Amino acid sequence: MTSHHLLLLPGDGIGPEVAGEVEKLVQWFSNRGLARFEIEKDLVGGAAYDEHGVALADDALNRALAADAVLFGAVGGPKWNDVPYNQRPEAGLLRLRKDLGLFANLRPAICYPALAEASALKREYVDGLNLVIVRELTGGVYFGEPKEIVTLENGEKRAVDTQIYTTHEIERIARVAFELARQRRGKVASSEKRNVMKTGVLWHQVVNEVHKDYQDVALEHILADNCGMQLVRNPKQFDVIVTDNLFGDLLSDVAAMLTGSLGMLPSASLGAEDPATGKRRALYEPVHGSAPDIAGQGLANPLAMIGSFAMALRYSFDLGQEADLVEKAVANVLAAGIRTKDIAAPGANTVSTSDMGDAVIREL
Amino acid sequence: MTSHHLLLLPGDGIGPEVAGEVEKLVQWFSNRGLARFEIEKDLVGGAAYDEHGVALADDALNRALAADAVLFGAVGGPKWNDVPYNQRPEAGLLRLRKDLGLFANLRPAICYPALAEASALKREYVDGLNLVIVRELTGGVYFGEPKEIVTLENGEKRAVDTQIYTTHEIERIARVAFELARQRRGKVASSEKRNVMKTGVLWHQVVNEVHKDYQDVALEHILADNCGMQLVRNPKQFDVIVTDNLFGDLLSDVAAMLTGSLGMLPSASLGAEDPATGKRRALYEPVHGSAPDIAGQGLANPLAMIGSFAMALRYSFDLGQEADLVEKAVANVLAAGIRTKDIAAPGANTVSTSDMGDAVIREL
Ligand SMILES: CC(C)[C@H](C(=O)O)[C@@H](O)C(=O)O
Ligand SMILES: CC(C)[C@H](C(=O)O)[C@@H](O)C(=O)O
Repeated sequence: MTSHHLLLLPGDGIGPEVAGEVEKLVQWFSNRGLARFEIEKDLVGGAAYDEHGVALADDALNRALAADAVLFGAVGGPKWNDVPYNQRPEAGLLRLRKDLGLFANLRPAICYPALAEASALKREYVDGLNLVIVRELTGGVYFGEPKEIVTLENGEKRAVDTQIYTTHEIERIARVAFELARQRRGKVASSEKRNVMKTGVLWHQVVNEVHKDYQDVALEHILADNCGMQLVRNPKQFDVIVTDNLFGDLLSDVAAMLTGSLGMLPSASLGAEDPATGKRRALYEPVHGSAPDIAGQGLANPLAMIGSFAMALRYSFDLGQEADLVEKAVANVLAAGIRTKDIAAPGANTVSTSDMGDAVIREL
Repeated sequence: MTSHHLLLLPGDGIGPEVAGEVEKLVQWFSNRGLARFEIEKDLVGGAAYDEHGVALADDALNRALAADAVLFGAVGGPKWNDVPYNQRPEAGLLRLRKDLGLFANLRPAICYPALAEASALKREYVDGLNLVIVRELTGGVYFGEPKEIVTLENGEKRAVDTQIYTTHEIERIARVAFELARQRRGKVASSEKRNVMKTGVLWHQVVNEVHKDYQDVALEHILADNCGMQLVRNPKQFDVIVTDNLFGDLLSDVAAMLTGSLGMLPSASLGAEDPATGKRRALYEPVHGSAPDIAGQGLANPLAMIGSFAMALRYSFDLGQEADLVEKAVANVLAAGIRTKDIAAPGANTVSTSDMGDAVIREL
């Protein structure tokens, strides 16, 4: 049996707690002889800064480069508000994305019928919602240079960020979106601000060009501000939304919040396929943050992290059946009325992080 | 009686229709001798392009510079999808903003109890919602240079946009937000992405600095992605949100959509106060766009445009009582169940653009 090499980077806040529940799951799979994992663990974010003075040590990066997949918890917290910019917790995540070449970030926003009540939106707007935001993750304003603050002669400061996109960066993310739409409902909405941004103009052109190879997929273009609106007005109109790094950051958070259960949402960040092995680098992480306010209290919902592990099973380890198994177990646990506090409901049974993990394993 | 000098720029799509209803209102005020207006009209957007080959002719700009206030309809439509970038309809609006120095864009998101049902959000989340987004309007990625598309040696293209902010640009918009909060519920949320953008780092610093002069106002900092989330999760937590040009574009559209009645929302774009006269340049415009799909059919809701005129009465013409009168009339018309199609409700009376304008005048 091949052994799957997984790097666990729990990070800060509730990261370690929710990662702990995945470790139980891995143990369960190993005990049953259903799959073999080789697990390594390392530090990222504030935890890495405290230990090494950087948000991701070279050692951890090298481990990530060598792993079949990285499972990432969350980073950040008030404790590190004043660390220097280049060492801030987020820098660890950004370095991973960049150095692993994880250009395609897939963020599903799925509303579980059992949880639709938790949404601020009326049930009919979100029940059955199932869209994916495909966010470009290694370009745009996150990484473009110049990115600096300079002091002017008059003593004022001047800050600059630069958004850059080249043809091939847009092309490859567009392909990911079209391929994904083919396996889904066959619809892509491409979002930019071509009415004010040149990167939006190029984005729009290149997506149209790539679309010629995917005539079976319906393509619409939607300005990013309108996309934010439409997500609130009628989210079920969308299947796949493809957009740049910064718009993807905002729009995926809005989309996630529509479901009413942030604690449920996994995500995958994928690199290019290696033509020799057919493999791609990958990092999986929950959409939620490090939630420092509830860290260490057993209140966190581990299901987004468990869902991220299921995505790793499916996309990185070719264990689709095992992924189905995990996702089915999660659905059953929810249907049985077992809830962490964030998704608590009248009549349901509110449990701790660890009880939730155990409940999923019982269901398996 | 002083005569107020108003430039009307109806623009494209439904712009001329909704502007027409404001003309009726102006007529009404003049007939009663309640106020004197000198109205000029000019072209902007696609309409200006068709006539002059540019989205705003110098002549129109000069009129705008000379006016006490500009009332702007909407621009754009599929007809002008293929005009050159610098002549696209939006360029007219951007030129007005820049050349009039309208750095402060105030976008209220108010949910009228009578219309709360129209929101995708549950009533309790939006009923009584009343927040203002203060968006920086003449800086950031909208205007920064370089802004270009170049062809590389390998034939690929490379597009660049540049986000720039200087201390004083942030300072003056922060002051607008704090002053406004003082007249409201005393709370400002400042939104940026300082975890990935240097402009966000500077924004955060400068807002903190300005806050020292407004210790009676509560300040919180919220990352822009989280702000998008919180707008969906619990919009009533906000009073004033201050943010940059691009984030303001997205967040204000999300906020507007929460109210369920885009056709109701006015906005004001203000310049700096002239120290000599105490006056500021100003442009008022509805938040909705040109809606080419319903243009010319008498379906458009003129209330956002009428509300924008009311804002002009209050902020540019010092006619606060008259503004109150108009706003009261609008509220009464709604309460009486008179609705355009976009805000139609069971049992209400659905009327045309022009009937709605007449209904407001009857109420006056
Ligand atoms: C932590 C932060 C750098 C990150 C981002 O902005 O990409 C986060 O918001 C996300 O969406 O993954
Ligand atoms: C028309 C367009 C240029 C404009 C903008 O992006 O600012 C619009 O979306 C707005 O919000 O006023």
